[in-house]
Amino acid sequence: MIVVGGGFGGLQVVKDLRRAPVSVTLIDWRNFHLFQPLTYQVATGALAPSDVTYPLRALFGADPNVEVMLAEVTGFDLESREVLLANDSQPDAPASLRYDTLVVAAGSSYSYFGHEEWREVAAEVKSLESAISVRSRILEAFERAELSMVEAECRAEMTFVVVGGGPTGVEIAGQIGELARDTLQHYYKRIDPGDARILLVEAGDRILSVFAPSLSAKAWKSLEHLGVTPTVNRTVVDIGLDGVSLQAPDGSTQLVPAHTVIWAAGVRASDLASKLGELAHAEVDQAGRVTVGRDLTLAGHPEVIALGDMASVSDGAGGVLPLPGLAPVAIQQGAYAARVIRRRLDGKPARRFRYINKGNLATIGRGHAVAELGPIRLSGLPAWMIWLFVHIWYLIGYQNRIVVMIRWAISFFSSGRAQGSRIISRS
Amino acid sequence: MIVVGGGFGGLQVVKDLRRAPVSVTLIDWRNFHLFQPLTYQVATGALAPSDVTYPLRALFGADPNVEVMLAEVTGFDLESREVLLANDSQPDAPASLRYDTLVVAAGSSYSYFGHEEWREVAAEVKSLESAISVRSRILEAFERAELSMVEAECRAEMTFVVVGGGPTGVEIAGQIGELARDTLQHYYKRIDPGDARILLVEAGDRILSVFAPSLSAKAWKSLEHLGVTPTVNRTVVDIGLDGVSLQAPDGSTQLVPAHTVIWAAGVRASDLASKLGELAHAEVDQAGRVTVGRDLTLAGHPEVIALGDMASVSDGAGGVLPLPGLAPVAIQQGAYAARVIRRRLDGKPARRFRYINKGNLATIGRGHAVAELGPIRLSGLPAWMIWLFVHIWYLIGYQNRIVVMIRWAISFFSSGRAQGSRIISRS
Repeated sequence: MIVVGGGFGGLQVVKDLRRAPVSVTLIDWRNFHLFQPLTYQVATGALAPSDVTYPLRALFGADPNVEVMLAEVTGFDLESREVLLANDSQPDAPASLRYDTLVVAAGSSYSYFGHEEWREVAAEVKSLESAISVRSRILEAFERAELSMVEAECRAEMTFVVVGGGPTGVEIAGQIGELARDTLQHYYKRIDPGDARILLVEAGDRILSVFAPSLSAKAWKSLEHLGVTPTVNRTVVDIGLDGVSLQAPDGSTQLVPAHTVIWAAGVRASDLASKLGELAHAEVDQAGRVTVGRDLTLAGHPEVIALGDMASVSDGAGGVLPLPGLAPVAIQQGAYAARVIRRRLDGKPARRFRYINKGNLATIGRGHAVAELGPIRLSGLPAWMIWLFVHIWYLIGYQNRIVVMIRWAISFFSSGRAQGSRIISRS
Repeated sequence: MIVVGGGFGGLQVVKDLRRAPVSVTLIDWRNFHLFQPLTYQVATGALAPSDVTYPLRALFGADPNVEVMLAEVTGFDLESREVLLANDSQPDAPASLRYDTLVVAAGSSYSYFGHEEWREVAAEVKSLESAISVRSRILEAFERAELSMVEAECRAEMTFVVVGGGPTGVEIAGQIGELARDTLQHYYKRIDPGDARILLVEAGDRILSVFAPSLSAKAWKSLEHLGVTPTVNRTVVDIGLDGVSLQAPDGSTQLVPAHTVIWAAGVRASDLASKLGELAHAEVDQAGRVTVGRDLTLAGHPEVIALGDMASVSDGAGGVLPLPGLAPVAIQQGAYAARVIRRRLDGKPARRFRYINKGNLATIGRGHAVAELGPIRLSGLPAWMIWLFVHIWYLIGYQNRIVVMIRWAISFFSSGRAQGSRIISRS
């Protein structure tokens, strides 16, 4: 069988099929698993890229029934049961691969609502390379401000706009606040990094809308405490080299002069989702996700499973399950898919997929987080401790755990002065 | 005063002038110090980039008399005593800066003996970005070999040629050997990484020629033990996408089919050295180094000091001191320059610079190194322990020391399976 994608979902499928009487080929276009819930910390230099990545071969090298393949999947042939591979940069590599069972877990990436030209100016912090580039931009902004002899330019350099008030937007805005107020404090002679203006722009009427309103309000206060200015009911209508244009509900627009804009707004499923949808005549929703059955299989193709951020699960009654695009969903679906495959080997039918919501977590800064665990709502230090524990626990690789724990411990006791990786990359 | 360059030499000058009654501006085009003696370990994924870098501001942020400036120095005006800065990408930044005393420690980079076209195919491992790119190439070579269905292609992918048999060449070749034989062993299903062919090409008649012949021979044995094939008396006459052409002393040439070539051969001083030479009518040698007096000052300009890899020190008798291009030389010269400046403030004359050779070290792999400490010659584990201790000791930043120690300790006891940073970067 073939598993496409080494994210949380695909990884879980392969892990749970280790030593099962089935041979598994895991295909990814990257040679590593990326721990996306912490990738934004690379963008502020709090963590190094190596802290949030783990080579796929190091995970499965010892498993005789697992093979890892570094290749880009371009499509599928559902009739001949083949995965199509890009091999134009290496003609001596295979162009396709046969499967009996196929699991596609190709994830999602940020979408710019049809404004692809914004991608250049407003980088996202979900992919590793983009996070590294955001890190360079943020640090360079302070450096340029320090050198600038024109006040308006200096102010624009020290203005940071984060688009999107979901967990990622809140977390990155909070971390920029900490970077400016604590970490970089006293590091410059001409500017005071604490003067940095950090704008968090949300189109809806509150930030962290998946949480209870009381927690949104607490997060708002924590952000303000870190020097972040959250704004709601503002739509981004343009992003350019000069700054961001925001539209108020009354239609009026305002240009915020800013040289660093970070995109944390909309997510779109991998193109492989719509390709599967087209081939199997399955529905594809607005976010590009392909609709699969309650057993995660593609309509008419019980041998094809799609899961994670790229799939929308039918509830069997004309609607879909309301699943968030989070790691726990992908992990539970991956575990479910492995169970389905194991049961099939035993000739048993599949049970229905059921998501167990263990809660929501978002951190705002050192010692500040919000947590919603069923009926329990927490904020401040207790929520942060849970956030910390969960992220260390789920981080892949004991060495990464040790290094991240050391960095966070030093950060906690030194106002964020852990070395992490505050370097400006140049090529 | 102005110090140009945050390498070992420049850093030492600034460190030793902390809290001195002089205001120091440190200018570097990078925002971090790079620990070059270990940068090659980034190229094999043994260490992560963040392990060998340290932000300059984090080093000097607390010192009231030190200012850090991120800018590129393009030249000097010795008459008006100004450093010229590139500001075309930021017109609101200064184009020049006045100094009373100037220390230039801009270092060196790899030279391709007039074959600049080789730089594209044969990357070096001295600069951070190039080391990261070599890491991707090495890891990608194994991935491509695993996918290849053509035997000759597969063999070329698994052939690695290192040009230059000095310490860097020996160290990187040894590490590739370890990577292939130990770390990646069992990680692939189709290829055996241990079959990799690693060629170390030296133009002279022995490797590690700065060491005693007996240690060169020991290093040779250690390399062979790691699966590296050293070759001497072979000159590189061409490097292309197909491989490397080597010429024997009898004039015959041989093409070695290889897709990964690493350059560790010739070093050339920063262009700022020849600019200083031209301005002050001082001699510039074949490696581009400017000749300075025994007190490291530029002829006719006692207010300008040049040191480290970019300077050649006159012995006062028509010759130059035979100083190697190593960190200890730059550090001792930096300390000397700071002493000269402090003595001037007290109205005292400068003493002559004297280099204390503390010895030579080169590592070949886990547990193997050669060391020459005055009359004492060591190899194997004792030499390696010294190498380890010295590198941890001189590494900048206690957090880097902790993380590197953890990685090396895990590596030592797990055949190099420490996670380090074996990721393939893509942009």
